[in-house]
Amino acid sequence: MKLWQKDNAKKTDEIIEKFTVGKDRELDLKLAQFDLFGSMAHAIMLADIELLEKQELDILLSECKLMYKIDINQGKFEINEGIEDVHSQIEYNLTQKIGDIGKKIHSGRSRNDQVLVDLKMYFRDRIENITNLTNELFENLIAQSEANKDVLLPGYTHLQIAMPSSFGLWFGAYAESLVDDLIALQAVFKVVNKNPLGSGAGYGSSFPLKRKMTAELLGFDDLNYNVVYAQMTRGKSEYMLASAITNLAATISRLAMDVCLYNSQNFGFLKLPEDMTTGSSIMPHKKNPDVAELLRGKANKLKAITTEIAFVQSNLPSGYHREFQILKEVIFPAIDEIEECLTISAYMVKHLKVSKDLLVDPKFDLIFSVENVNQMVIEGMPFRDAYKAIGMQIENKAYIPIKDLNHTLEGSIGNLCNDEITRMKDEVINSFGFEKIHQAYENLLNYEVK
Amino acid sequence: MKLWQKDNAKKTDEIIEKFTVGKDRELDLKLAQFDLFGSMAHAIMLADIELLEKQELDILLSECKLMYKIDINQGKFEINEGIEDVHSQIEYNLTQKIGDIGKKIHSGRSRNDQVLVDLKMYFRDRIENITNLTNELFENLIAQSEANKDVLLPGYTHLQIAMPSSFGLWFGAYAESLVDDLIALQAVFKVVNKNPLGSGAGYGSSFPLKRKMTAELLGFDDLNYNVVYAQMTRGKSEYMLASAITNLAATISRLAMDVCLYNSQNFGFLKLPEDMTTGSSIMPHKKNPDVAELLRGKANKLKAITTEIAFVQSNLPSGYHREFQILKEVIFPAIDEIEECLTISAYMVKHLKVSKDLLVDPKFDLIFSVENVNQMVIEGMPFRDAYKAIGMQIENKAYIPIKDLNHTLEGSIGNLCNDEITRMKDEVINSFGFEKIHQAYENLLNYEVK
Amino acid sequence: MKLWQKDNAKKTDEIIEKFTVGKDRELDLKLAQFDLFGSMAHAIMLADIELLEKQELDILLSECKLMYKIDINQGKFEINEGIEDVHSQIEYNLTQKIGDIGKKIHSGRSRNDQVLVDLKMYFRDRIENITNLTNELFENLIAQSEANKDVLLPGYTHLQIAMPSSFGLWFGAYAESLVDDLIALQAVFKVVNKNPLGSGAGYGSSFPLKRKMTAELLGFDDLNYNVVYAQMTRGKSEYMLASAITNLAATISRLAMDVCLYNSQNFGFLKLPEDMTTGSSIMPHKKNPDVAELLRGKANKLKAITTEIAFVQSNLPSGYHREFQILKEVIFPAIDEIEECLTISAYMVKHLKVSKDLLVDPKFDLIFSVENVNQMVIEGMPFRDAYKAIGMQIENKAYIPIKDLNHTLEGSIGNLCNDEITRMKDEVINSFGFEKIHQAYENLLNYEVK
Amino acid sequence: MKLWQKDNAKKTDEIIEKFTVGKDRELDLKLAQFDLFGSMAHAIMLADIELLEKQELDILLSECKLMYKIDINQGKFEINEGIEDVHSQIEYNLTQKIGDIGKKIHSGRSRNDQVLVDLKMYFRDRIENITNLTNELFENLIAQSEANKDVLLPGYTHLQIAMPSSFGLWFGAYAESLVDDLIALQAVFKVVNKNPLGSGAGYGSSFPLKRKMTAELLGFDDLNYNVVYAQMTRGKSEYMLASAITNLAATISRLAMDVCLYNSQNFGFLKLPEDMTTGSSIMPHKKNPDVAELLRGKANKLKAITTEIAFVQSNLPSGYHREFQILKEVIFPAIDEIEECLTISAYMVKHLKVSKDLLVDPKFDLIFSVENVNQMVIEGMPFRDAYKAIGMQIENKAYIPIKDLNHTLEGSIGNLCNDEITRMKDEVINSFGFEKIHQAYENLLNYEVK
Repeated sequence: MKLWQKDNAKKTDEIIEKFTVGKDRELDLKLAQFDLFGSMAHAIMLADIELLEKQELDILLSECKLMYKIDINQGKFEINEGIEDVHSQIEYNLTQKIGDIGKKIHSGRSRNDQVLVDLKMYFRDRIENITNLTNELFENLIAQSEANKDVLLPGYTHLQIAMPSSFGLWFGAYAESLVDDLIALQAVFKVVNKNPLGSGAGYGSSFPLKRKMTAELLGFDDLNYNVVYAQMTRGKSEYMLASAITNLAATISRLAMDVCLYNSQNFGFLKLPEDMTTGSSIMPHKKNPDVAELLRGKANKLKAITTEIAFVQSNLPSGYHREFQILKEVIFPAIDEIEECLTISAYMVKHLKVSKDLLVDPKFDLIFSVENVNQMVIEGMPFRDAYKAIGMQIENKAYIPIKDLNHTLEGSIGNLCNDEITRMKDEVINSFGFEKIHQAYENLLNYEVK
Repeated sequence: MKLWQKDNAKKTDEIIEKFTVGKDRELDLKLAQFDLFGSMAHAIMLADIELLEKQELDILLSECKLMYKIDINQGKFEINEGIEDVHSQIEYNLTQKIGDIGKKIHSGRSRNDQVLVDLKMYFRDRIENITNLTNELFENLIAQSEANKDVLLPGYTHLQIAMPSSFGLWFGAYAESLVDDLIALQAVFKVVNKNPLGSGAGYGSSFPLKRKMTAELLGFDDLNYNVVYAQMTRGKSEYMLASAITNLAATISRLAMDVCLYNSQNFGFLKLPEDMTTGSSIMPHKKNPDVAELLRGKANKLKAITTEIAFVQSNLPSGYHREFQILKEVIFPAIDEIEECLTISAYMVKHLKVSKDLLVDPKFDLIFSVENVNQMVIEGMPFRDAYKAIGMQIENKAYIPIKDLNHTLEGSIGNLCNDEITRMKDEVINSFGFEKIHQAYENLLNYEVK
Repeated sequence: MKLWQKDNAKKTDEIIEKFTVGKDRELDLKLAQFDLFGSMAHAIMLADIELLEKQELDILLSECKLMYKIDINQGKFEINEGIEDVHSQIEYNLTQKIGDIGKKIHSGRSRNDQVLVDLKMYFRDRIENITNLTNELFENLIAQSEANKDVLLPGYTHLQIAMPSSFGLWFGAYAESLVDDLIALQAVFKVVNKNPLGSGAGYGSSFPLKRKMTAELLGFDDLNYNVVYAQMTRGKSEYMLASAITNLAATISRLAMDVCLYNSQNFGFLKLPEDMTTGSSIMPHKKNPDVAELLRGKANKLKAITTEIAFVQSNLPSGYHREFQILKEVIFPAIDEIEECLTISAYMVKHLKVSKDLLVDPKFDLIFSVENVNQMVIEGMPFRDAYKAIGMQIENKAYIPIKDLNHTLEGSIGNLCNDEITRMKDEVINSFGFEKIHQAYENLLNYEVK
Repeated sequence: MKLWQKDNAKKTDEIIEKFTVGKDRELDLKLAQFDLFGSMAHAIMLADIELLEKQELDILLSECKLMYKIDINQGKFEINEGIEDVHSQIEYNLTQKIGDIGKKIHSGRSRNDQVLVDLKMYFRDRIENITNLTNELFENLIAQSEANKDVLLPGYTHLQIAMPSSFGLWFGAYAESLVDDLIALQAVFKVVNKNPLGSGAGYGSSFPLKRKMTAELLGFDDLNYNVVYAQMTRGKSEYMLASAITNLAATISRLAMDVCLYNSQNFGFLKLPEDMTTGSSIMPHKKNPDVAELLRGKANKLKAITTEIAFVQSNLPSGYHREFQILKEVIFPAIDEIEECLTISAYMVKHLKVSKDLLVDPKFDLIFSVENVNQMVIEGMPFRDAYKAIGMQIENKAYIPIKDLNHTLEGSIGNLCNDEITRMKDEVINSFGFEKIHQAYENLLNYEVK
């Protein structure tokens, strides 16, 4: 362990290398596609300002398209031992194939703005995927809500029985929660959908680069104008995306908590599909809701990622610092995990079996007390007095529940408004505008030098 | 301390009372105005569905308007000893003045949806204030950026001198950071700008309440439809607002860190106004940047509020739980603090004095090395080769800096794009639509029963 | 709000003053007693190295003792408007009474080491109080454990019924949890029980101060030797104390969660005392466990304080920074809150009523399945085979529970080992050594100049 | 992605399997050795209470010893595809080799107490390793402190020059910081050094297991007595160990921040070894302190692990829940990372080159102002008056620094007290008692059935 004590310069190098490179090689694979797109856009722009000749551009783009079709699309792209990151690997591959032209592509570009533009494209892409998975979970929730709209459920406050609820309401509530989660996600999308390319190492370049041109080629909505600020979006983007993920995680973890509780013998409101339960090594009677618990646990764990990201960059003065690179190790797996949680949640929701006739049990009789109070109010008694009268009946064991429910107000048992909730969800999803990005990438891959 | 051991039932009551009420009475004062608005809208709707007679509504609204003019506007509203919260106090005041009609106002309403609607109006109000203060800080930053656009500054990466920057860039970067912070804030505004009134204790009501009517009366954009979800927005709203606050806090704390560093004798780039520095009890020569440090510290402290809020509600099953009330103790002071930080930052930025001619110092010569490289590239050498050539000159102490800068690309030294940044800022601020809310409140205060 | 725009220098001053002083005046009152002790010890040492004459010391100590008896002990000590902090106030009071001698006391002392030594004495004092309150909660838990050692309770894993437990086990578990919490607290006590006095502003002093002498006078176990490190303990002490508080908070919040759950109609295992429950504004049947929920919520909130403290100081270079002062606003209320939570928990535990004969209910029959398995093992069947046999019986509805329990192993139903747990608790508490500190303070107050 | 929509039961199984197993197989390898020790101790005890015959025990122990020598010691142990975890694998291997005897070993044991005892042994082991690495870093810091005890350094407060410091002080400060970090680590060691074996799934066992016997065989200091509490230590142990790790991380991140700052051209106090710096892709002059930055970043990232762990288990009622298993994914890599950070820090410290004669620079003259004040005090002037006099000289540019330093107090420039600091460090390390554990393991591997 005392790595410096012997003649082990080589071992020292290895340890420092491992410490420095970390998981970069593995994580960078996710950026390869976008690094290639960024390079193509940069090259087209360099040709436009005559830092690259048309023939050079032609050769370069052909090679890039080939790399996209072979290496990226067929999953063959690799970062070789001894090559530090995805940016070096792609530049290396180009130079191997087309010589000096490959070297020219780094003109007016720093690894700093290169990784920034890659990350923003990557985040846009994954936000689209998260949005789609959220939409699926939403649809399954609404389907269950509709299918069980008349199945009553005791409603709780303070974990005490409170008022009548229904599975229609319960499933629909989580669907509506996802709508607000999507609103927050869409804000992050707006923030990351701006082009940092051209900001160099955070202080721009003396070349007359055309930043709006690359923005358009890559489907960005706008620029990170100020080059110092463009650099500051490193860390800030990760933090904001992490925040949006924690909202979804909070919705999922609460759903999973309800499922675990309602699946307990003391509630018995829900049953999980067999393939989501597990036995015990000592208790032969057990069917434990492991998957729901893991959903709850993984989602709860995600709540810490904003803190993790904030600690890495807190109190760093402006300008790039190496630890920004560590953030990939935090945000990349977090994206994978929220996607996994959304997928499993959608599966679980689809297969939940609900229990019927729960409110027949007399232990839930008091749940109807507000119905009695309201009846009296409608008959003219001030609310506070009706409240006292029913309270007295309960205390004197003279209370008789009114179990005949007739709720019509928006969003209640008899009027779930799932169509309104779906309308709100559609409005958010449509406002993202993913199509524009797909179109830009298609154009780029079909770009012809004239 | 063993409060149960003696005949001290009274003392026990006091301790539990203190534990239970907490800071509610003090914090609730901030909600009084909105509780009154909510009550007025609820009453108008109750009359519409004939749970209140027109004459009763007339008396009730007159009393409410009076209370607004006297108690709220003149700051005389108080929550009396023995009254639990703002909702009880307002209901109590009404009942004192107009008897049974005051009691009727709680029909179809629970304290749960009452506090929810109050909180949402309060958050809307404070988001507007935060937006205005952010705008002021933005304007001061842009003004300084414009005033100092030609004053050069060494740019750093890794805390090592890197490339030429300018005060124009440095101030402008923080302005642009605020634009993205506002985008996140606006998403929260959308989330809280939905009406929860009518959701009762989370399970609606058997009364045929008209929730869209109260939404319109109170200037909300839409409803929290599902009544179970409406209740879930308690905690979720606070969390999302807290997230938005942490973005602003991160911008401010980084700005303050730069100021503290640049104000150090080892940098000497900036000078703070005299009233923002403090002496030492033992060192007679000291002028410490206490205010900038406190800005940094307070803003950094705010980064923990999302965690604090998440912990209070993590793994609570759906349905109201009493600890949601504790969240007022976290989010209310956090709002005050971010407003204070924005105010002090705006003041500080306005009064910062920048140092000129910094790059004349030969210790910054290497900062121009990229200029030399780019010069060679423009003359036709591939970037990677030019890079090596200048690297060699530096190693051989043969390097001569090109100090004649001519940056034209968007967002760089010679082309700050402050107008574009301001345009983006204006777009976000205009998308909030605060005016609609002002109008709704004005209509409410002028509402005439017909 | 634009505080700088008009001729309002005075208003600016006020706003900055408010921003700078914060809650210092209020919080500092808690330090007054210890500031006085620190001053007395410092003065005695100054006399010893002849920077103060004996007569001067005599006058000074008399005045200090008087201030202790009148101002501190009778709660009359105040920090006046215009006086910045407790240190200035005490020095001011002394100078008012005894003139130049009062001024001399700051020789060889900086406000930095003065506040450090005050904080360490304050933390020692509050750690003692927290220890005592923890001990009371512990005793109440053990008392309930013993009183209910034969009352069976279903044991759960995965929120599914698992194996037989008992209230004896359940109460005792939380008692043992407090033992480990005390071990962590004791480590913090060791860390804060070292003398920082003499470290000045973090760079010592050219006076030949005797730091071990003041350490002994103030009852410290050792020194923070390195003066730069002594300064680093600011922030570090708060963080470590906060960590210890979060352990206690985690124990309390889990206990409160169990109580809320077991008190729900779906469990019905526990009943809270009447004065710990609350009604609802719309549901006349409600008796909500508000106090238990607030315990859970306040304890959960405390889990964020380490993060809050860490953010304030993260990435600050060595040397004092003004934001360390903000930490008082975090740690002081956290100490109050954990003490309050411990007090209320102890009260709650004492008054919980447990339900008997729970396991008679046939829904808990499967809880005995391991008993059947073990019976077969004792009769010679390998565990894995017995497990399968009973599993088969359960599936075929042929299972008959063995409800006759006879557990003898350490820490199980029939052998709670509360004496061993109490022994461990006593060992930790005795290792603190609070007595030594009490003795030192007493000696200081009786110190006679010879 | 809609995994349930087609006839893809198999794919569903795979996805759920992946979700459920997570990284268990990989992480569990670290536990293999300890699982084997735990099984051996459990078997010896089972034989003692006659649930295993002597011949059976003999066969079983022989097989275990063989597995230790071959699989564990030579790194050949693997967890096969289809085997869920380390516990199943070891039991499977035994059963393959020795048939029914292998099955008997699970008598009186649950996977829950099995993993608990494995984790506690694993944590003890890694705490020992962390302690050793901390000791190495400590020694390197003290060596540098001694080697540079006379090299002066400007001391800062508020990032403003303050008073004279030295590299002796600066290095020594971080060494002393590690002492307090070790005190906190030792408390965790005490907490995890208790035997949970025999607690089963958290409700004990009806077998007359001898828990103190297994405790002694495995070198534990004491028991987790209460079986419900034993289960609660899952999560609690991880949290407390994480807390201790954050203390070390805070020391390292501050050290790294100082190094990055002092290595900046604006300070120039330190120089990093060449192999710890890196170039830039566009700036040929760069030598960036990447390794120090990564140290800072990785250590800062670790500050979030307590929050991560707390979120996973917050508000879970008592009793095992599946998400406790996720904690391995958090704490295992955190242990690796702090060890890596300690190793790299020790290397960095050893190779730092300090700059001499820094205080000759006139920009640091004011740093001596307290010396002048103290001189006047020694000559009889009250401190506050001397302070004013020197302040006046400074304002009138009449100040002449006294650069002749003669500090003798404990822990200051002239009297570093590194021996005292080392003494404190040795006391903590000696109090762990790792030797007892080594001895227990050795005895276990040499255990002969009589």
